[in-house]
Amino acid sequence: MSICVETSIDIALLGCGNVGTAVARLAALAADQPVTILGALVRDPNRPRDIPVPPNVTSDPAHLLASNPSVIVELLGGTEPARQLVLEALERRIPVVTANKSLLARHGAELREAAARAGVPVLYEAAVLAGVPFLGTFARRPFAADASSLTGIANGTSNFILTRCARDGDSLATALAEAQRRGYAEPDPRNDVAGIDAAEKLAVLLQHFASLDVHPDAIETQGIDLLMDLQTAHARELGGVIKPIVHADWTSALEAFVGPAFLPATHALARVDDVENALLLGTARGRLLFQGPGAGADVTAAAVLDDVREIGAGTAPSAARVLRGCRPDSPETEWLITLESGRLPRAADVADLLSAYGVFTHRATPRRSRDGRESQSLLVWPVGRLQLERALDALRGAAGCAASAIRALGAAA
Amino acid sequence: MSICVETSIDIALLGCGNVGTAVARLAALAADQPVTILGALVRDPNRPRDIPVPPNVTSDPAHLLASNPSVIVELLGGTEPARQLVLEALERRIPVVTANKSLLARHGAELREAAARAGVPVLYEAAVLAGVPFLGTFARRPFAADASSLTGIANGTSNFILTRCARDGDSLATALAEAQRRGYAEPDPRNDVAGIDAAEKLAVLLQHFASLDVHPDAIETQGIDLLMDLQTAHARELGGVIKPIVHADWTSALEAFVGPAFLPATHALARVDDVENALLLGTARGRLLFQGPGAGADVTAAAVLDDVREIGAGTAPSAARVLRGCRPDSPETEWLITLESGRLPRAADVADLLSAYGVFTHRATPRRSRDGRESQSLLVWPVGRLQLERALDALRGAAGCAASAIRALGAAA
Repeated sequence: MSICVETSIDIALLGCGNVGTAVARLAALAADQPVTILGALVRDPNRPRDIPVPPNVTSDPAHLLASNPSVIVELLGGTEPARQLVLEALERRIPVVTANKSLLARHGAELREAAARAGVPVLYEAAVLAGVPFLGTFARRPFAADASSLTGIANGTSNFILTRCARDGDSLATALAEAQRRGYAEPDPRNDVAGIDAAEKLAVLLQHFASLDVHPDAIETQGIDLLMDLQTAHARELGGVIKPIVHADWTSALEAFVGPAFLPATHALARVDDVENALLLGTARGRLLFQGPGAGADVTAAAVLDDVREIGAGTAPSAARVLRGCRPDSPETEWLITLESGRLPRAADVADLLSAYGVFTHRATPRRSRDGRESQSLLVWPVGRLQLERALDALRGAAGCAASAIRALGAAA
Repeated sequence: MSICVETSIDIALLGCGNVGTAVARLAALAADQPVTILGALVRDPNRPRDIPVPPNVTSDPAHLLASNPSVIVELLGGTEPARQLVLEALERRIPVVTANKSLLARHGAELREAAARAGVPVLYEAAVLAGVPFLGTFARRPFAADASSLTGIANGTSNFILTRCARDGDSLATALAEAQRRGYAEPDPRNDVAGIDAAEKLAVLLQHFASLDVHPDAIETQGIDLLMDLQTAHARELGGVIKPIVHADWTSALEAFVGPAFLPATHALARVDDVENALLLGTARGRLLFQGPGAGADVTAAAVLDDVREIGAGTAPSAARVLRGCRPDSPETEWLITLESGRLPRAADVADLLSAYGVFTHRATPRRSRDGRESQSLLVWPVGRLQLERALDALRGAAGCAASAIRALGAAA
């Protein structure tokens, strides 16, 4: 039933950085249903701030929780003290909105249990693909949510970097510097470029769509920081592009990986460019694609405030599902193998050696020669990581060339 | 707040054709929250049916409404008697789920007022892009729903036909026959291929996103049935594809059109193929894309049942917004002009004549000659329909050639 709420919703912010500031600014625009910021938990209450300061800026969480907020908005990031404070709010039966993917990925089961006990919602639309509201939708709609696989681009920073490489011919180093210059990447970019952020988001998506509790560290994760510039060029020659992918399939046992992957140009995610995010869901009734802007502070703040208003209107879905602990397998996929050497072995010898390990080439770039080094990339039919690694080891040993590989997806996946 | 409902939801079906049958079949699978079909309104209660017959199959609507359903599911199609029956249900404060785009497009304002008076929801996720749940989401999330334009592919039948033409080289007639053979197109396909279905869907989308009440007949609507086969070929030569588009922009005054339009290959909708549907929303915080399967009976039934369950769980958004009556303007867009004649005038003369009317060519195909006829297509910079028509009339008069045009969108639109 529709519930009209005309009174103000009183929120308390845990954290008041870029996103908190944007929440405060945007909340002032919600004319039809006022959102009042009761206070904010910050490290240093005396630091000057760029927002109309809430009445209660404090470094004391007990003080803030005692102000009787109708919703706690958790924007601290990281696991502690966020976890303790969210659990405390839930114990007091205060609904929680969080943008904190790390907290959810690592303690989602615990938070969901606490929410179930308290009978209050925990909403987290802003934690993954904040620009595209779909998590709440699928929490409410079991027929639509009957999914068994997902493939997505969840880290805008990595996508920006790989887009610059593929489209503008930047080196990885140049593209990373440009991302930092624009504020898309942190001065220490490891969390994004090593795939940690993406693996955490995949863990949250698996809780949401598959009711599986998967530790992000248990997911096969490769960063884009290990790519070589020549792989970008080779991908183009093979009619595709390298994108930072999160992928999982739980049709039977769970298989998952996070990392840069070769996509043919016809893949639905091949042209999700710059800082855009996208998710492709394989469902019982077809394939769904959601695509939207990567999460800047404004986008995240809008998702947070919409979550707040859903709680105010009483239309929030329940996050209280029981998760099953699970360790993902490494899937069998195609791979893009890249060889580099002073002088590469004959192509036929490479193919023979790989096929002796059950790894069969189906396409290859021409050989390139540059700075006295030869290089070539091959697309091979689906095998698991272990089998591939054995073949690469043999190749390195027998042929004395450098060999590396990233996963490759078919047009349909 | 999350509300757990473990009792059964009792629904009454208005109409029991393909979708009604699929609803009954799928409802039986909802193990966690039973959906019981109390009865169905049909024309002929004695016709044998392919489903476990509900206890109460009747041709008497009063009989069905008296059975005290918790939700009415309206699947009759068309405006009457659907409108009367839905209004009657709302007067009795029975929530309504409908898949009926015609009813909404033509009587949406009246139904929303009745729903507001009764304080019960009317849900219609199945009416437009049934395979992609997004309407309910945006009804609940004002910040995400801060949109000012939309561009979509809303008619799966037309998209299937144009995909066959563009990708497989079918003629329009062959592609239509194939769509009919597969059951995608009705024996009388007018509703789809003349753009009526798409214009009704655009009217529903404008109610939803812009709170505007636009009569579908007032929207500039062109069917794909007026396309010529050579336009498909010319579009490819210009690096693009023709897609069946619904488009509206209400940044200032409302502009809208429905019809086949040229899209460059880089447009986000250029590769939405076969019976797939998609919607691109221009919002305050970026561009959102939703893409999914076109509406078969199963897809529609799933959307209907998810709506039913949202009503059961108390998380349904309100449809009770006030609409403002509005007549759309015809937008200024690029156009794809196609000329055909025994012998076309010199290209420079064509460009001169068009430019005298303020219509400036920016790209053109080479001329083709076939069966003693010459043809050529031109892309021209944005102008309104009236200005274009004047230029085409002058061209027809002065040059004695057949000239037709469809709209064209830039990569960004």
